[in-house]
Amino acid sequence: MQRLLIFDPARGLLENLPPGCQPRHVEGYVWLDLNRPTPEELELLTSLWHFHPLAVDDCRHPHYRPGMAQYEDYAFLTLRCVQSHQRSLTGALNVFLGPGFIVTVHHEELEFVNQLWQQYRQDPQLFQKGADFVLYSLLEPLTETFFTFFDRTEGKIEYLEEEVFRRPTRQILNQVFTMRRQAIKLRKILGAQRDIINLLAYPEFKLVKEENRVFFLDIYNEMLRLIDQVETFHDLASSTVEIYLSLTSNRLNEIMKVLTVITTIMMPLTLIAGIYGMNFHYMPELEWRYGYFVVLGVMALLAGVMLFFFRRKGWF
Amino acid sequence: MQRLLIFDPARGLLENLPPGCQPRHVEGYVWLDLNRPTPEELELLTSLWHFHPLAVDDCRHPHYRPGMAQYEDYAFLTLRCVQSHQRSLTGALNVFLGPGFIVTVHHEELEFVNQLWQQYRQDPQLFQKGADFVLYSLLEPLTETFFTFFDRTEGKIEYLEEEVFRRPTRQILNQVFTMRRQAIKLRKILGAQRDIINLLAYPEFKLVKEENRVFFLDIYNEMLRLIDQVETFHDLASSTVEIYLSLTSNRLNEIMKVLTVITTIMMPLTLIAGIYGMNFHYMPELEWRYGYFVVLGVMALLAGVMLFFFRRKGWF
Amino acid sequence: MQRLLIFDPARGLLENLPPGCQPRHVEGYVWLDLNRPTPEELELLTSLWHFHPLAVDDCRHPHYRPGMAQYEDYAFLTLRCVQSHQRSLTGALNVFLGPGFIVTVHHEELEFVNQLWQQYRQDPQLFQKGADFVLYSLLEPLTETFFTFFDRTEGKIEYLEEEVFRRPTRQILNQVFTMRRQAIKLRKILGAQRDIINLLAYPEFKLVKEENRVFFLDIYNEMLRLIDQVETFHDLASSTVEIYLSLTSNRLNEIMKVLTVITTIMMPLTLIAGIYGMNFHYMPELEWRYGYFVVLGVMALLAGVMLFFFRRKGWF
Amino acid sequence: MQRLLIFDPARGLLENLPPGCQPRHVEGYVWLDLNRPTPEELELLTSLWHFHPLAVDDCRHPHYRPGMAQYEDYAFLTLRCVQSHQRSLTGALNVFLGPGFIVTVHHEELEFVNQLWQQYRQDPQLFQKGADFVLYSLLEPLTETFFTFFDRTEGKIEYLEEEVFRRPTRQILNQVFTMRRQAIKLRKILGAQRDIINLLAYPEFKLVKEENRVFFLDIYNEMLRLIDQVETFHDLASSTVEIYLSLTSNRLNEIMKVLTVITTIMMPLTLIAGIYGMNFHYMPELEWRYGYFVVLGVMALLAGVMLFFFRRKGWF
Amino acid sequence: MQRLLIFDPARGLLENLPPGCQPRHVEGYVWLDLNRPTPEELELLTSLWHFHPLAVDDCRHPHYRPGMAQYEDYAFLTLRCVQSHQRSLTGALNVFLGPGFIVTVHHEELEFVNQLWQQYRQDPQLFQKGADFVLYSLLEPLTETFFTFFDRTEGKIEYLEEEVFRRPTRQILNQVFTMRRQAIKLRKILGAQRDIINLLAYPEFKLVKEENRVFFLDIYNEMLRLIDQVETFHDLASSTVEIYLSLTSNRLNEIMKVLTVITTIMMPLTLIAGIYGMNFHYMPELEWRYGYFVVLGVMALLAGVMLFFFRRKGWF
Repeated sequence: MQRLLIFDPARGLLENLPPGCQPRHVEGYVWLDLNRPTPEELELLTSLWHFHPLAVDDCRHPHYRPGMAQYEDYAFLTLRCVQSHQRSLTGALNVFLGPGFIVTVHHEELEFVNQLWQQYRQDPQLFQKGADFVLYSLLEPLTETFFTFFDRTEGKIEYLEEEVFRRPTRQILNQVFTMRRQAIKLRKILGAQRDIINLLAYPEFKLVKEENRVFFLDIYNEMLRLIDQVETFHDLASSTVEIYLSLTSNRLNEIMKVLTVITTIMMPLTLIAGIYGMNFHYMPELEWRYGYFVVLGVMALLAGVMLFFFRRKGWF
Repeated sequence: MQRLLIFDPARGLLENLPPGCQPRHVEGYVWLDLNRPTPEELELLTSLWHFHPLAVDDCRHPHYRPGMAQYEDYAFLTLRCVQSHQRSLTGALNVFLGPGFIVTVHHEELEFVNQLWQQYRQDPQLFQKGADFVLYSLLEPLTETFFTFFDRTEGKIEYLEEEVFRRPTRQILNQVFTMRRQAIKLRKILGAQRDIINLLAYPEFKLVKEENRVFFLDIYNEMLRLIDQVETFHDLASSTVEIYLSLTSNRLNEIMKVLTVITTIMMPLTLIAGIYGMNFHYMPELEWRYGYFVVLGVMALLAGVMLFFFRRKGWF
Repeated sequence: MQRLLIFDPARGLLENLPPGCQPRHVEGYVWLDLNRPTPEELELLTSLWHFHPLAVDDCRHPHYRPGMAQYEDYAFLTLRCVQSHQRSLTGALNVFLGPGFIVTVHHEELEFVNQLWQQYRQDPQLFQKGADFVLYSLLEPLTETFFTFFDRTEGKIEYLEEEVFRRPTRQILNQVFTMRRQAIKLRKILGAQRDIINLLAYPEFKLVKEENRVFFLDIYNEMLRLIDQVETFHDLASSTVEIYLSLTSNRLNEIMKVLTVITTIMMPLTLIAGIYGMNFHYMPELEWRYGYFVVLGVMALLAGVMLFFFRRKGWF
Repeated sequence: MQRLLIFDPARGLLENLPPGCQPRHVEGYVWLDLNRPTPEELELLTSLWHFHPLAVDDCRHPHYRPGMAQYEDYAFLTLRCVQSHQRSLTGALNVFLGPGFIVTVHHEELEFVNQLWQQYRQDPQLFQKGADFVLYSLLEPLTETFFTFFDRTEGKIEYLEEEVFRRPTRQILNQVFTMRRQAIKLRKILGAQRDIINLLAYPEFKLVKEENRVFFLDIYNEMLRLIDQVETFHDLASSTVEIYLSLTSNRLNEIMKVLTVITTIMMPLTLIAGIYGMNFHYMPELEWRYGYFVVLGVMALLAGVMLFFFRRKGWF
Repeated sequence: MQRLLIFDPARGLLENLPPGCQPRHVEGYVWLDLNRPTPEELELLTSLWHFHPLAVDDCRHPHYRPGMAQYEDYAFLTLRCVQSHQRSLTGALNVFLGPGFIVTVHHEELEFVNQLWQQYRQDPQLFQKGADFVLYSLLEPLTETFFTFFDRTEGKIEYLEEEVFRRPTRQILNQVFTMRRQAIKLRKILGAQRDIINLLAYPEFKLVKEENRVFFLDIYNEMLRLIDQVETFHDLASSTVEIYLSLTSNRLNEIMKVLTVITTIMMPLTLIAGIYGMNFHYMPELEWRYGYFVVLGVMALLAGVMLFFFRRKGWF
């Protein structure tokens, strides 16, 4: 599905390209949004818009890693946002940015693109701030999707850490490893995205106007914050695995102490009982009047001594 | 709550803005302190002081990560100090620094801001050193809060390490992991704060006067020291976890040795007793006069030999 | 085996060198491909083509690590691709690139070289894009071999991770370690290859024409993606080892619990049976009418209490 | 305690400041050494020598981390040496270096300072090489203290590694962890010290004369060597911990094998003895003439078969 | 032992210094080789050759870490090669390189120095390529010693890894740790050596002629390859330790399963036997005709059920 906004300060807002008009050289500002585009719609990017075939190809199968390529008078960006209600963790947004136009391509419905589209449609004067400001207005909620994701996971990792302390199970462990896997992948994405934003905020990058640079610097600072968060998040998940291992090893010690205490107390008593169960003809103790009670007493005493000894060693 | 100091060398100290006066262009020096500001007070930063909306927004919800943004003729800083009597580990201080003014915004009572305020109120000649010197005078005790925190934790980590050696428990382990989590978080904050101080100390940063640069370099050196400390602190906490694991694994060996020694000695004796407890009609040893005592002797001998053998292998 | 293509816009395609002609200074474009070259064929690179002996030597025994050496008017490259149907993981491709010529040397049949050769032979006008474009057209499928490899291994690592969760065996572990070893080796290769592509894409590198630079930048971006992938891949393999260790330690705890529960329940019962198996003459209980049943009841009760106790501690 | 050397090529050596003379602008060379200075002596550094208060403050409580601050025409250094006969591992040396003077401040007796002092007192012509050469002559033995320390610890770590292989105990482990803690701390100190020496050896650093630069470069190379050593030292200590863990885990396996072999052999034999100890009225085997000996034989056979089986599995 | 080669294109080869001649300013090229030099021979480097005392001192006790110092018109290098037939892993080679001379100093017989010496003695025209080419001709085989070493260890590490999979013993583990220790040390040496070669290959380094630079760049590439190899080698050794730990932990699980299965089956049977060994006067089962066989049957059934249960849980 494609939709188009053309804003010419003199003539106001159009939603269709005037016939015979080259969209990249239109007067004013143009925003083309391709939502789950058909192959034919993508084809137009080469034939009508004259974008570089390598870039249009990347729109077909957007890369996992964010990237930017600069062509003579426009730039092509691949960006990533968190799309957590989907099966894959992230969604892609491709952008062509020129001095007076912006083209956005995405294969999934992106809520924040729709919202911005409505805003620009209702208040086309916003275009006066430039095509780069449209990009900023997209980057802002796109970055926000990561913050939302981390806020959610931060609470989850703390919950998992407490659970591990309470009762370390395989299910908990599985979730911790899943979260660390997400952190490993998001770290790569965010690192690449930060480098792109950094390039956009360079004074040498002419497609961003001087007065809008500060907005991209702000996004850049947000990226630095996100990278701090994803690293902290990864470290906390790794730390939780270490806690798990420490506690498991601690529990093993506890279990083995129980086993050893029981064995150490019971085995000698069983031996004594076994000895007086032997069938030798001549065993003087057996004839004693209170032999049986003496042996029971000795057993109780022995058990008591051992328990005392283990308690002093702090085994239970 | 807001409070204001205006110092004009010609007219002395004022505590209110003269009506119709633009605070950023006042003669002399201005310090505005917003302590737990109301939304209206924050609103004034945009309407009256004409600060950039992005910066004022950051004052509302100060970021976890320290940062700096430079605008035409002023800079906006987000700084962090340790506020350990609070639930969260750190508190935030936002600063707008201009050639003749400084605005400080914080959502918690900060003791060192109050002290400096009183000092400047009593001795307004201090303003002569410049607005940048006010910032330095704030950075100095702010940095000190980290040193105080590390002095305290340094003693604690050494105590925990000794405890782990004495008796490794879950409670100790829990504290060690908590400390390491704090180290992970503070390292990020200090790293970002160091970069900011570095920028302030650059000759290119015009808001700091040439003669005051050495003070910011001093703070920068203190940040390097703090980062060394937090890294050492993190390494020591990790090392303590490793000590814990090594000792637990050592204890497990000790426990298993006890179990094995007991089992190895007792089982053969129990077997012997069991054999002479069998009810076969024809068992010649049973009729021997001293059979019982011979068997007891053999048992004692066997136990002795095994004990000797285990001691030679160094098992106890 | 050697084969040659000479394309002169004026005279069309030749497949043999005109006699007495210096191949490096031929009019138009030359592509020499040496497939599993004989020593004599390699010898010609020095005697006829006048390449530097150090470079020709590297063609004889191509290095494991990709590299580039620049000579007066040509460059020598060692590249690596994945050749997974072979015993060794990677194959080598050596390239001499000059302003009007390209020489490719390889000791294994490389499918993508053959395909490109056929393409250029059928459509020699492709040479018009330059010798550097031939290099790009080789780099493109060469890089693709890595992507194909990672697509395959990505699925495998996820399968192994699930297997480890289901049933950790030595065979699975062996495969995980093999994959990590591959990741360690490919990371080195890709890192070196990225640096080479980066050099090729520099404006200072005169052998690549201005209009073709964007293609090499595209390959460079693909290399960055590959390095991200190999690092993620290595981290996931390491993570799987950690999962294995955590689960093994978890299983050990489960096993030890079973052992301890059984021992703790059975040993006291065995002791009781042993006590009433003693042969003392005077043991009052033995004469009781229901003594036997009372003892059986006591045993059942004891076992029940212990089971209840262990269940409450959550041991099974 | 303070002591002073003034060397004027024209007038020779003085040990007291001529009255009314500004020590920083004296003709010739001045060396002031403050050994465990009183507060009054330190006070003179501000009042008489006019050093910056921040620097004099650092002399009072020398920082743990080496550092350098540059003032208009002099530099202030905080250096660290190994003082292993003390409770703390390192001692501090503060130095003010000017074009014609050097001031050394230390709170502990430093042997190498005393020696150099005596040397300069006996041969004042040494001052001709400049104040920077005095600093070099101090840095040389100061660096040597680290080498001496590492030579000692290198032998110790190898001894500990062998001990761990021979018999892993808690005491050995404790020593290994102590050494690693020292390595963690020294690494930080040496890293900071290297950066300082690097600054001293820069051509831009005007307080070091052109002809003396090579000496500071030599010290810089020695610092690089020390950092290599401390890192190797840290890696070896960590490696020893890993050896410990591997061996402990190996020993646990050995212990468990003994336990399992004993249990597996003894338990079935005990069961057989128990079966023939049952009191059933009708048990045909009991009446056999050689039943007892048959059972003993079966037991021996069973034990033999199991031993053979375990030996084939390589368990002992 | 010292030996000298002087080559003057006009006069041919000399093996002694003409009397009264300053060796550093001789016409043509000079190569002095000091093999296990006496103190007097080293003394000549200061008195006759006028080298800097710091450099000559380093020749006496060559540093472990490769290094380079540049003096007015010559450079001093400390290099390391693998000398594996010696007790220490590496040997040192010191080199003074000047525009027309090279001095090599070593305390061990180095085969590749001898070979090059003979080559130059037989074909003195080689000197025409410059003193820097002599250095290259030494660096080439020196670098080769590392490659030879790694080829050998690469095979060994793969053998050890297979051994660990087959049967993890302490001896194998010891060898793995020894190899990793070598990797740790060689990595440091190679890192420093790479930096030196890099400096030699800089266009700013005037002692290497323009036409010879490509040879040093080739050595530099070889150093990069060696560093890749030593890192891979270290990673593989670490990976082998991890394999060892994983397998040990796996074996422990196997051992504990055997123990638990045996205990769980035998203990209840022993209890049953014990119960019917009690001496109560009234135990009805004892009088049953087939009581004994019924009990044996119950025991067999119980054992069978448990075996079936354990097999279903996959324990053996």
